[in-house]
Amino acid sequence: MQASKLMTLFEDQLKDILWAEKELIKSIPKMISLASSVELIEALTTTLEQTKEQISRLAQVFRTIETKPSTVKCDAMAGLIAEATEMLEDCEKGPLCDASIISAAQKIEHYEIATYGTLRELAETMELIDAAKLLEKSLKEEKSADKMLTGIAREFVNLDAASLKA
Amino acid sequence: MQASKLMTLFEDQLKDILWAEKELIKSIPKMISLASSVELIEALTTTLEQTKEQISRLAQVFRTIETKPSTVKCDAMAGLIAEATEMLEDCEKGPLCDASIISAAQKIEHYEIATYGTLRELAETMELIDAAKLLEKSLKEEKSADKMLTGIAREFVNLDAASLKA
Repeated sequence: MQASKLMTLFEDQLKDILWAEKELIKSIPKMISLASSVELIEALTTTLEQTKEQISRLAQVFRTIETKPSTVKCDAMAGLIAEATEMLEDCEKGPLCDASIISAAQKIEHYEIATYGTLRELAETMELIDAAKLLEKSLKEEKSADKMLTGIAREFVNLDAASLKA
Repeated sequence: MQASKLMTLFEDQLKDILWAEKELIKSIPKMISLASSVELIEALTTTLEQTKEQISRLAQVFRTIETKPSTVKCDAMAGLIAEATEMLEDCEKGPLCDASIISAAQKIEHYEIATYGTLRELAETMELIDAAKLLEKSLKEEKSADKMLTGIAREFVNLDAASLKA
């Protein structure tokens, strides 16, 4: 096991994303309950399942570095969730609300893409092969989820939302 | 001009990212002052210049919808900057600090990628051709900046940071 200073950064980022994923377990169901598009509900339901898997994957990553999983509050994710909550507060179910949900969800996905991307790079640098593979898997899931949401916005949501008069 | 409800979402997102970009004008110089790698300093200096251009591009986008530029506090960016500030607080100049700067900067880039991506999609849906082009330009810059930071981490920073003993 390499006891380098980079390991400290790696651990800090792991604690940060574990906190974030656990918060999302609480937030995604709220988004699902506000969504109307069947495609969006399906995508968010898949995201919720993947979030649970990503949490157990993070526990495995902690094991590869012989460290007990723990969390640290992630100010960025707290801000992202606060922004999403505010945006969806007065949301009337329908395509505009769906467009807002997609916008909020994609910001969240991108936070995760950035963090899993950094974590995978750090794991590769430290030659933590198993950890790098696990993190790569979560990174790929996040990237696919983001692309799927763009597709849903284009195909099923934005045009309908544009036709709603202000 | 389409006065749709989607326009409200578009305007809200424009105000959000304008606030975020203006905050970054204050935060990036702090990152530059803590960086050691010449490549990282160059990349962040370019990012600072691009941020200024993106702000004037946002003013142009506001003009295309005949609306005066204004801002709304962006909780997510406030959280991202708070997280970066905390992370870099006790940063000792060197490769580990550079790795931390890159991690924080990439999270910020990804927030912008998500937001400019949403804005471009909304502009295209509403057939705001000029706005869509301007937003696409900023989106491309953000994606390139993100890739450049990954390259710098791989080539110049992470291996050096890994060799520092804890």
